[in-house]
Amino acid sequence: MANSKYEYVKNFEQPDLLIPNTWIVVRIDGRGFHKFSNKYAFEKPNDRRALDLMNAAAMAVMNELPDIVIAYGISDEYSFVFHKTCALFERRSSKLVTTIVSTFTAYYVHLWSTHFPDLPLTAPLPSFDGRAVQYPSVHNLRDYMSWRQVDSHINNLYNTTFWALIQLGGFDAKSAEKELAGSLSAGKNEILFSRFKINYNNEPEIYKKGSVVFRDYEMVEPGTALEILDEDSAKTVEGIALSKTQEEKDKKRRAKARITIQHVDIIKDEFWERRPWLLSNKPGKIPKEP
Amino acid sequence: MANSKYEYVKNFEQPDLLIPNTWIVVRIDGRGFHKFSNKYAFEKPNDRRALDLMNAAAMAVMNELPDIVIAYGISDEYSFVFHKTCALFERRSSKLVTTIVSTFTAYYVHLWSTHFPDLPLTAPLPSFDGRAVQYPSVHNLRDYMSWRQVDSHINNLYNTTFWALIQLGGFDAKSAEKELAGSLSAGKNEILFSRFKINYNNEPEIYKKGSVVFRDYEMVEPGTALEILDEDSAKTVEGIALSKTQEEKDKKRRAKARITIQHVDIIKDEFWERRPWLLSNKPGKIPKEP
Amino acid sequence: MANSKYEYVKNFEQPDLLIPNTWIVVRIDGRGFHKFSNKYAFEKPNDRRALDLMNAAAMAVMNELPDIVIAYGISDEYSFVFHKTCALFERRSSKLVTTIVSTFTAYYVHLWSTHFPDLPLTAPLPSFDGRAVQYPSVHNLRDYMSWRQVDSHINNLYNTTFWALIQLGGFDAKSAEKELAGSLSAGKNEILFSRFKINYNNEPEIYKKGSVVFRDYEMVEPGTALEILDEDSAKTVEGIALSKTQEEKDKKRRAKARITIQHVDIIKDEFWERRPWLLSNKPGKIPKEP
Amino acid sequence: MANSKYEYVKNFEQPDLLIPNTWIVVRIDGRGFHKFSNKYAFEKPNDRRALDLMNAAAMAVMNELPDIVIAYGISDEYSFVFHKTCALFERRSSKLVTTIVSTFTAYYVHLWSTHFPDLPLTAPLPSFDGRAVQYPSVHNLRDYMSWRQVDSHINNLYNTTFWALIQLGGFDAKSAEKELAGSLSAGKNEILFSRFKINYNNEPEIYKKGSVVFRDYEMVEPGTALEILDEDSAKTVEGIALSKTQEEKDKKRRAKARITIQHVDIIKDEFWERRPWLLSNKPGKIPKEP
Repeated sequence: MANSKYEYVKNFEQPDLLIPNTWIVVRIDGRGFHKFSNKYAFEKPNDRRALDLMNAAAMAVMNELPDIVIAYGISDEYSFVFHKTCALFERRSSKLVTTIVSTFTAYYVHLWSTHFPDLPLTAPLPSFDGRAVQYPSVHNLRDYMSWRQVDSHINNLYNTTFWALIQLGGFDAKSAEKELAGSLSAGKNEILFSRFKINYNNEPEIYKKGSVVFRDYEMVEPGTALEILDEDSAKTVEGIALSKTQEEKDKKRRAKARITIQHVDIIKDEFWERRPWLLSNKPGKIPKEP
Repeated sequence: MANSKYEYVKNFEQPDLLIPNTWIVVRIDGRGFHKFSNKYAFEKPNDRRALDLMNAAAMAVMNELPDIVIAYGISDEYSFVFHKTCALFERRSSKLVTTIVSTFTAYYVHLWSTHFPDLPLTAPLPSFDGRAVQYPSVHNLRDYMSWRQVDSHINNLYNTTFWALIQLGGFDAKSAEKELAGSLSAGKNEILFSRFKINYNNEPEIYKKGSVVFRDYEMVEPGTALEILDEDSAKTVEGIALSKTQEEKDKKRRAKARITIQHVDIIKDEFWERRPWLLSNKPGKIPKEP
Repeated sequence: MANSKYEYVKNFEQPDLLIPNTWIVVRIDGRGFHKFSNKYAFEKPNDRRALDLMNAAAMAVMNELPDIVIAYGISDEYSFVFHKTCALFERRSSKLVTTIVSTFTAYYVHLWSTHFPDLPLTAPLPSFDGRAVQYPSVHNLRDYMSWRQVDSHINNLYNTTFWALIQLGGFDAKSAEKELAGSLSAGKNEILFSRFKINYNNEPEIYKKGSVVFRDYEMVEPGTALEILDEDSAKTVEGIALSKTQEEKDKKRRAKARITIQHVDIIKDEFWERRPWLLSNKPGKIPKEP
Repeated sequence: MANSKYEYVKNFEQPDLLIPNTWIVVRIDGRGFHKFSNKYAFEKPNDRRALDLMNAAAMAVMNELPDIVIAYGISDEYSFVFHKTCALFERRSSKLVTTIVSTFTAYYVHLWSTHFPDLPLTAPLPSFDGRAVQYPSVHNLRDYMSWRQVDSHINNLYNTTFWALIQLGGFDAKSAEKELAGSLSAGKNEILFSRFKINYNNEPEIYKKGSVVFRDYEMVEPGTALEILDEDSAKTVEGIALSKTQEEKDKKRRAKARITIQHVDIIKDEFWERRPWLLSNKPGKIPKEP
């Protein structure tokens, strides 16, 4: 029985290729996580178990998709960055996005019981949506990463103060909100310190900085690595592709690299200068075991 | 600390709205399920537990997303159909697709242990990719559904014969493939019957027809329902929207409806004529309990 | 000298195919025509020469692109409709739009001296921009056409009254605008009649109705033609294409048909029912010469 | 009379914004120019009048659209480059493309009689189609430009030899084609020289190099200008926009600059290094009159 009579319906599928030589960021967000976090009584302002679960799922995604060079997570969102030379799935947008969303969700649900052993997951289950965005230059990409980390800081300072007012200061939600309306960063730091003896600087880095996930190689001294200009790496795009041998070598070294999670500043140049492999996509040196 | 310096990066997000008044089909596919089915030793040609798990996940998706009017599943793929009047997520393509992919994955992983109690899931976990396609007319939509069901039939007849040759006929994979090369449907039916006394018609409907998921109301006699022309239902698009009261009523009736899974022909007119609510998106009559 | 080193740049071209089985409307608009109409002292509220030139250019476009079934023009804009079965340029959006814009512009500039013999065209020259929009159903398409004709009416009634106040009533632009602010249709009719003895109904149809361009065949009695359902004509999409012989016949009959410009109501059903070839895309009967 | 009943049709218009911070190339091509060039008996292999007309139209386009930084033309095609910081028409693709196509066509038709005084233009008139392509880096953009210039060279060498065989060697088209099949550049040079005493190097530059159009400022010594990295000019994208005063100054200087057409190598670095304003989009120094 031939299927030709109906096969014309395939023509309605529209291509959704991303432009070559752009950095691809796939950001995913928890769907309805406000309600979800209430259902499982997440600790406020930060639930360490929930963050660890997010990070574990993100590490699994990076492990299954070696084309991702770096990921950054805060709260119930995670951004995954594909190098601009990435050719995975021919750069088909929906394929890239759904693969990440699905893999992340699978591990989130699967690892739930490890992080919340006493709270069995019940329907409706947690889920995530996602989208892809293209950034033409390293500059734009780094500004994207900075945007997320600044947002993380703003939200965490607010939430820390808000919940201190409630948990330690006896405010209800409404009056806490009112108290904070229009206050600046300095004001919130002041509230925390003067009223509750909390020094915001001493809060755990994971809450203040979010989580940065990447393959770990030996760091270099700033200034010693060849500068990574857009122009340089564009070469792979123009056909001076890596030799097969080199590609195989890179692949092996990448597979050997440990995926690490750190809670560090990614806004300043230093983070990127000391880890040139992130932007060059050339694997670094595997660090010696101590 | 204002975030305005970096916020410009939001401008790189591109809109991906689907066109109004088109039927939206989101099809998802298991990623690397050939390997995955070997890992868990799925029964061949069909593993009932695996199909039941797919169906359970699909029902959960329909339950969480009332905008889906019908879904159709075969093997490791599922198609979900949004009515052409659907306004969910402003019809943003990536939002619709990732929500379905993520919800489906969550239930697939979560319900795994119910359907495979003796086979604990281990990394790499199952995952799905997906894409959205738009169909302008009922005609195109029904041809899409027919395309999937015909494909289902072709594949299942092939697989049933292929595995009979191996499991009952002592062929190895290569020679079984050779035996079937170029054979027509009739030929495969003949092989099954003459060599293995298998009457393909007696195979379970779930294998032959795939699985159709929809909200169940009282069926009508063909010809008694008002015909559903594209023109008619377009009215909701042009602003003659349902009254709020009517919308509320519809919503309640829809919520009361039982979601059913059936293994029936969706190519012929009868299926659609007896269930006018599928194309009209007007909930039918809740069937009386027997 | 091989060009392969640079040819990779072709990969940055992104496909822009319109969805099959949708009606394609290409609307073009004069760029900066307010200034342009002042430069050549167009008569207000309507300059017959300018409209005739627009119409002549539109007829030339229809003549060169037989895939266009109907066009509608008002003021400095024109909408061209491709039948939903149109396969011209593989339905590439930019190709369809630029071909229409360029052909229209070429005739507009070339025919200028015929319509404005005493006003030589000088730089900056007139130009047009354009865009394509897809409509899934006949209903949506007809609503689009109605939208433009209603707009035409609203604008023309306003302009007629506005310029009467200025040319006959001695108002300046500002006070005329003020006089009309918030007035309804009836109010404007009243102003025209009571102050200036102008009966708007007696204004020329070309100003009140705009211009409709199409191939002219013998009209049919409403009700005698087979109703054109979306479903019917979708058949060409699903592969039951016309036979080559039939296609050749249609092409010849279409080439013989006279392209006509009329200034009639296209909102009511009658226009479409009496000219079934517009929506069916099956050429009608060539009218006998009188 | 309100138009609200039909206005919903505007929702079918889909956004087509190009990504920020990419170089936009709009390439236009003559439609059916093979036939067109026969109709007006263009000289072979190159008709100087036709090229001058193309160039005159391109200069007019650049004059009306100051956002274009450079254009490159060969035969019946022209590429126009918008700087990556361009914000014209909010970077709407169809608006950018149709404006260029329409303006070019207008001047081509209008200036025809200047370049072909004895050959009045008749229907069907010349027309052009066009499309926009985005290039993320300077590297990609320059490769695009190189691609076109290499293509120009390949085609012109072929055509020069092909027409020499016909016009001077008495070949017919078929045998000339056969003679050239598979020949390399050197072979064609050899044919030209040994058979017809034509030294290809002495052919006019306009035929060998194509035409480069840009605003002319004082050239700088290579190495003296600040290097234009992608990173640098990205600054305007991230909000460190030029001050209003600076913008006004730039605009004035740009308006003063003479638009020039040159037939030079744009593949080597020198062209770009000596004209840093092309990539920086900062107007240079107006050259003193001699």
